[in-house]
Amino acid sequence: MKVVILGIDGYIGWPLALRLLKEGHDVVGVDSFYTRARVSEVGSGSITPIKDMKDRIKDASKFYGKTIGFYEGDINDPDFVYMFMEREKPDAIVHLAEQRSAPYSMIGLKQARETLIQNMGGTINLVYAMKDIVPKAHLLKLGTMGEYGTPNIDIPEGFFEIEYRGRKDTLPFPKFAGSWYHWSKVHDTNNLMFANRVWGLRITDVMQGVVYGTGTKEIKETESYTRFDIDEVWGTALNRFCVQAVLGMPVTAYGKGEQRRGFLSLEDSISCLMLGLNKPPEIGEYRVYNQFDEHYSINELAAYVKENGEKILGREVEIKHVENPRVEKDQHYYNPEHKKLKELGYKPSGNLRAELEKIIEDVNRFRENAIRFKDAVMPRTYWKESRGLK
Amino acid sequence: MKVVILGIDGYIGWPLALRLLKEGHDVVGVDSFYTRARVSEVGSGSITPIKDMKDRIKDASKFYGKTIGFYEGDINDPDFVYMFMEREKPDAIVHLAEQRSAPYSMIGLKQARETLIQNMGGTINLVYAMKDIVPKAHLLKLGTMGEYGTPNIDIPEGFFEIEYRGRKDTLPFPKFAGSWYHWSKVHDTNNLMFANRVWGLRITDVMQGVVYGTGTKEIKETESYTRFDIDEVWGTALNRFCVQAVLGMPVTAYGKGEQRRGFLSLEDSISCLMLGLNKPPEIGEYRVYNQFDEHYSINELAAYVKENGEKILGREVEIKHVENPRVEKDQHYYNPEHKKLKELGYKPSGNLRAELEKIIEDVNRFRENAIRFKDAVMPRTYWKESRGLK
Repeated sequence: MKVVILGIDGYIGWPLALRLLKEGHDVVGVDSFYTRARVSEVGSGSITPIKDMKDRIKDASKFYGKTIGFYEGDINDPDFVYMFMEREKPDAIVHLAEQRSAPYSMIGLKQARETLIQNMGGTINLVYAMKDIVPKAHLLKLGTMGEYGTPNIDIPEGFFEIEYRGRKDTLPFPKFAGSWYHWSKVHDTNNLMFANRVWGLRITDVMQGVVYGTGTKEIKETESYTRFDIDEVWGTALNRFCVQAVLGMPVTAYGKGEQRRGFLSLEDSISCLMLGLNKPPEIGEYRVYNQFDEHYSINELAAYVKENGEKILGREVEIKHVENPRVEKDQHYYNPEHKKLKELGYKPSGNLRAELEKIIEDVNRFRENAIRFKDAVMPRTYWKESRGLK
Repeated sequence: MKVVILGIDGYIGWPLALRLLKEGHDVVGVDSFYTRARVSEVGSGSITPIKDMKDRIKDASKFYGKTIGFYEGDINDPDFVYMFMEREKPDAIVHLAEQRSAPYSMIGLKQARETLIQNMGGTINLVYAMKDIVPKAHLLKLGTMGEYGTPNIDIPEGFFEIEYRGRKDTLPFPKFAGSWYHWSKVHDTNNLMFANRVWGLRITDVMQGVVYGTGTKEIKETESYTRFDIDEVWGTALNRFCVQAVLGMPVTAYGKGEQRRGFLSLEDSISCLMLGLNKPPEIGEYRVYNQFDEHYSINELAAYVKENGEKILGREVEIKHVENPRVEKDQHYYNPEHKKLKELGYKPSGNLRAELEKIIEDVNRFRENAIRFKDAVMPRTYWKESRGLK
């Protein structure tokens, strides 16, 4: 199958490209190098050494004997999207090309607009190009578990059957996101449901949990790293905790630390995306699944990092609670369903506690880079103080 | 109270300005004359004679002794929004400044992008400017009953309490809109809920039904008309039916004609907006209500136009069903709640059947304009054929 990966230069895009190549598929990548540019704007960068796209493509072709096609450009430009879709006519498109940071979207009005408008604009261009050029192709779109928020009831996979005042219907589950970034994904989900309703596009909308880990089988064998961000804007809580442990800083949990989220390893994220591609929805079907393995609270993550950190690094790791820069419930019910991927054949490859050892070792190995960027680890972006015009 | 009306040049904006002035409030208007420009692009125009803003302001000041302040510009420009908000520091903002046509949004990718991006961008600028400049002001924002779609269960006012798998929560009612325009309003609603959550902004989100009528008490006394659109892009079904009856064309119902929607008169729309302004939500409150009087099916509207038209015009009015250019259920359950405005004091001033006579008379009075634009009445915009790049 021929797969176009939008955002091939990103954390998930690159290992997905390697896996697809290895399994014999044709891969075409698209990227604007937006994330590289924006991460360096906040004085940070990937602590794993990442090559530029030309060398990445060389590495991949050396190992797997196939060359990745590549287009540099911005998918918020309709002409660009129509151009590569016309030339490539893919069987599947994996859409990872969105601004992906909640704190970035909350820095101020400029970043809020950029997040909302870029993310929506790219997705809209894409569904029109699909309708016009490859109406039977499969769009695998990355959403986030964060679209659901933290309701006081179970979270189903996309839709739920409800009874209300004596009548029944199956409706989209009501979303309540926690940042402009997360809302941009809700808006995408809504727009995709509509594109499916009007033109019958075949779509998988993946509500993905937080992804952790520095590698996959293919990254190991090619030694062609994917990025690993550790700052308050672009890094996840777990990444920041690992860096704090390695650099002898206290591990800083936001607020009470009882915020609970779904997680899965990078290895599993790639396996799940492959499952989605290999077992596409029917023509005309809009499919949603919740893509995560287990859920953990921030306090649990901090405790695991402390435990593993102390074992590997041989010294004490302190845990500290700091003011929560976000606006979110820090104690809440959380019971999201995740059956559909298991029905498709997903088997978790390990678990967070086991993987943590490897992450801490990798962070320690690249500690020089972590030291370079350590001033960007502590929170500076406060939801309530999102900047206006200035 | 000082009220800024965004979209003061529009169908609702102008009569609202007159009512506010008459009741002694200070009114400042903002408009980019977007609707005038876009309507003429489809070869159409208001059949009621509408003056330019300068003369409108003169008319109003002659009658009510107060001058309306006015800013010409696009609220999707953050600098412009901050500028007039800084200068005016309003007590309330009524936001009517959005692309408001479902068919326009479905013409093609260009119009879809324009609708989604302009509408969202303006609203985002506004909530930031409110937070920074007038954090206690009241935002009265026009949404649409069309955000809800046509679920097979009752439609509450914004939120509903649900029990799901043995647990309960009060959540936003799941939306399912029927065009990019309607979705742009859903996206706004979501963004407003979030702005309220993070910054405590005081917001009324009005889910308004279809508005009918050519006038209000103030339009009658000032003879300063508001626009009345009759083409397939900018006119409502009822407006098109009235023009068809007057011009001796068959009244054309889309599809089976069992689509059912909520309606209210222009007089009542203005009265309801005044109620919302005079009885604002608490500081920090996000309030939603469903603003309509009665619901009717397309077939019922067609029958009323036939009945009234034949009486007034003295000849037969034919009803014809044509292929539905939209993608929508043409038979469905429909039971939206509308209690909250009645609790605030809303009393309907009349009803659609009674008002129809006056509408048909006015259309007949301006039949020369209706004749000028009659080629734009029949459907040309088909949802399934929304244009891509070209």
